[in-house]
Amino acid sequence: MAAQRKTVTLLEVNSTIRNMKLPAKGVLVSRAAEITQELQQGVPKPFKAVISVHFGDGHAMGMKPITFIRQVMAACFYPELLDSEQLPDDVRSRAKIQLQKCDGGSIGSYCDSSGLLHVRQSVSRYIERRDGGVPCDPGDIYITGGAQRALQLVLKMLVHSEGHSKTGVLVPVPSYIRFNNAVEEQGGVMLPYHLSEEQSWELEIEELQRALRTARGQKCSPRVLYVINPGNPTGQVQSRKSIEEVIRFAAEEKLFLMADEVYQDNVFGDDCEFLSYKKVLFEMGPEYFHSVELTSFNSISKGFAGECGFRCGYLEFVNLDPQVRRYAQQVNSVECCPPTPGQIILDTLMNPPLPGEPSYPSFTAERQASLDTLAHNARLAERTLNSVPGISYVPVQAAMYCFPRIHMPSRAVQRAQAQGLAPDLFYCLRLLEETGVAAGPGSDLGQREGTHHIRFCILIPTEKLQVVLSSLKSFHLKFTQEFS
Amino acid sequence: MAAQRKTVTLLEVNSTIRNMKLPAKGVLVSRAAEITQELQQGVPKPFKAVISVHFGDGHAMGMKPITFIRQVMAACFYPELLDSEQLPDDVRSRAKIQLQKCDGGSIGSYCDSSGLLHVRQSVSRYIERRDGGVPCDPGDIYITGGAQRALQLVLKMLVHSEGHSKTGVLVPVPSYIRFNNAVEEQGGVMLPYHLSEEQSWELEIEELQRALRTARGQKCSPRVLYVINPGNPTGQVQSRKSIEEVIRFAAEEKLFLMADEVYQDNVFGDDCEFLSYKKVLFEMGPEYFHSVELTSFNSISKGFAGECGFRCGYLEFVNLDPQVRRYAQQVNSVECCPPTPGQIILDTLMNPPLPGEPSYPSFTAERQASLDTLAHNARLAERTLNSVPGISYVPVQAAMYCFPRIHMPSRAVQRAQAQGLAPDLFYCLRLLEETGVAAGPGSDLGQREGTHHIRFCILIPTEKLQVVLSSLKSFHLKFTQEFS
Ligand SMILES: Cc1ncc(COP(=O)(O)O)c(C=O)c1O
Ligand SMILES: Cc1ncc(COP(=O)(O)O)c(C=O)c1O
Repeated sequence: MAAQRKTVTLLEVNSTIRNMKLPAKGVLVSRAAEITQELQQGVPKPFKAVISVHFGDGHAMGMKPITFIRQVMAACFYPELLDSEQLPDDVRSRAKIQLQKCDGGSIGSYCDSSGLLHVRQSVSRYIERRDGGVPCDPGDIYITGGAQRALQLVLKMLVHSEGHSKTGVLVPVPSYIRFNNAVEEQGGVMLPYHLSEEQSWELEIEELQRALRTARGQKCSPRVLYVINPGNPTGQVQSRKSIEEVIRFAAEEKLFLMADEVYQDNVFGDDCEFLSYKKVLFEMGPEYFHSVELTSFNSISKGFAGECGFRCGYLEFVNLDPQVRRYAQQVNSVECCPPTPGQIILDTLMNPPLPGEPSYPSFTAERQASLDTLAHNARLAERTLNSVPGISYVPVQAAMYCFPRIHMPSRAVQRAQAQGLAPDLFYCLRLLEETGVAAGPGSDLGQREGTHHIRFCILIPTEKLQVVLSSLKSFHLKFTQEFS
Repeated sequence: MAAQRKTVTLLEVNSTIRNMKLPAKGVLVSRAAEITQELQQGVPKPFKAVISVHFGDGHAMGMKPITFIRQVMAACFYPELLDSEQLPDDVRSRAKIQLQKCDGGSIGSYCDSSGLLHVRQSVSRYIERRDGGVPCDPGDIYITGGAQRALQLVLKMLVHSEGHSKTGVLVPVPSYIRFNNAVEEQGGVMLPYHLSEEQSWELEIEELQRALRTARGQKCSPRVLYVINPGNPTGQVQSRKSIEEVIRFAAEEKLFLMADEVYQDNVFGDDCEFLSYKKVLFEMGPEYFHSVELTSFNSISKGFAGECGFRCGYLEFVNLDPQVRRYAQQVNSVECCPPTPGQIILDTLMNPPLPGEPSYPSFTAERQASLDTLAHNARLAERTLNSVPGISYVPVQAAMYCFPRIHMPSRAVQRAQAQGLAPDLFYCLRLLEETGVAAGPGSDLGQREGTHHIRFCILIPTEKLQVVLSSLKSFHLKFTQEFS
């Protein structure tokens, strides 16, 4: 036996895994961590702290949790608090009910692989209210450890890399990167369709058609269409007409629709409103409603609560073949079960305090404050970004990101290429070094050839956003000057 | 467009998924739920409640959580409790530290995909203490949403179903069923090796050799050896000699070792002790320690805390090729991140209260009570099971299950077969209908052809176990009579 000789070398790693693209942003994230350490060690820098806005995580940036939710959770964890004066009455009665629904009265017990039954029921009633009465069966709801896991579950079932008929998945450009990684992980073929930045990031049907045609050359069989509405990173909200077109396209081309609607509660643009794919599908009549296969996704990580760390999301299947559903159940059960704390938070969000209950005023005020901050921040960002020469920006209507286009001097592009870096990553790294702001490069999310973007999160305390925006503005002017 | 015609029918489902075997126990679990409903509706039955012991979940059956852990969690969720007299000092200072380590001071923020850094550090120090100083690098620790996810992560990397060289995985019989499902999900080839019931469920090297030889005929390339120690469902604890033999076998045959050690804290047998694969590997000298690739697994679902619902486990890589590790990181990051509450519980378990701290006495007493119940229950089970003619039983030394062998009259076997049921599932269904006890059939876990077993969990309150045992005893006698 030769020491040091490994059994598993790179060659033995599953080839679909080996073919995955690593997000380039990794370099940036590591560098941000190093800089934080350097600051702690007293290394002088032109800024006091790193501000990480390359991901959508309000809590990490100082947004406050919703008190009611956290109080319910505290009592569920430590039931002696059920008798404590320190918690409002409605919190205690809520927590009692939650505990009664858990096996053995403990949130520490396993639950069914598709989630706690009462939570699935709450979700289905919530969806019915949201969609003005369109029926929703709790049996079609699967609760998962985050929306990302729900996306993975569906891909696992439908996408494969066997033989000549690899599964083709239509994905937007730009997109939510972990979705793309999940497609790669399953060995699927990505069929990118570009959203139109010129048309305020709209989804254009001709572009979907073009993308589908390219599949023919790729020995793959296109089967899934992924849409993100409201958009990440674009912040665009689809109109009813646009959703109808997409549904008709899916019906004609026999595509399984995956509608990622995790930002449904983060819509703040004037004259726009979130319409679920399911509601629109229903209103298109039985011919569509009983045939088009749709799965939609939601998450407690987004909305006004932003509870990312608890990992809880859900999906709803519409029109899934019952035989196929059996397998969904099965694949899901391999994972054991979703974490309970997130499920109880989800249940609480689906059943907020009612008028007259002690926690109603604070809950309502905190929810509004979170949504107001987001809307306010979006306007603030728009004003600043529109005032910077060399940055063009489509104002966002929803979600929690800005995705401005950065016009980079060609000397800067050359310098980046000489260093083997995507130009916008080069830009982001410089921005980080000089201002402490960690934004994400558009090249990770996808963008039209030759264009460059950055993405940053705006669901952060307004004071921090002001620092981000002014840092970006002065950095951009300096950067442009340096490379002109 | 023809209504009702589905895009995704069974034929389009990923074939590795379609080939997965559903655990037969599903029927039993649904029937148990129905019976519970019937009881609630007042349908008369010869018992008052269903007792579900087909899985290993103490909390579900009424075991109490460890107060200290739950108090720390309550304060992390609702930081106003940090100033509350209702919580001991050490709880509050622990919670403060935990919150400081979370981004933005909130446990609601995302963390690194491999887990919170301070938790990985705690785990590595814990492992060093456990193994008498064998070094452990926090960079080799990945925290996951349950040990099941850690197992899936490793399988995802190493197991594939491409072309002729499907990956072969040596799995024990009987085994932990979700592991087998995870292998199937990846399209790997199962290479079963039988544990020897005659030798108190020992792992015999000749049997591993035999299993490996069968791989030759199966167009697969055996690469992974999965061991469970302490055993589920066998409750057997491997001796140093046995572990050494397995390690030598893995070294000679160039197998990647997956050591599932989730029951490491549940050892109660006389004269037996848990030895980690890593410690034994280390003590076999550098020739082995620097070459054999090993991953070991642990979980907060087991041990004395039994916090299953929070979904937290971890793995430690030993000798993983650094290039391969990069991919592990990547596959892991597709999942986003493990849930924070479970991580904080894990951290608290790795750093229990110290003598002199206010919570030390209660924590220590509660831990001991949980472990004592388990040991006491094991003796109780042994006494009863050994007194039933037609049941033979190898006493367990560890974990939390009994796995007695049921000698079924041949007429009972025929009746089961006529109904298309595995004989032991038939037995379990009858046991459920007549006594309300839901135990799991051995056919799901694997057993030697022609033998029949049932598995039930013994980490439950002793009063409940008494009901289980006496129900089983009288049922078995009646059943045997009926079919003789
Ligand atoms: C479009 C989109 N879908 C899904 C997710 C995943 O959310 P979760 O935290 O629930 O996994 C995100 C997270 O950023 C997202 O942006
Ligand atoms: C042998 C074994 N490994 C792993 C697990 C999974 O544990 P977790 O709850 O951490 O996913 C179990 C659960 O029963 C088990 O018995």
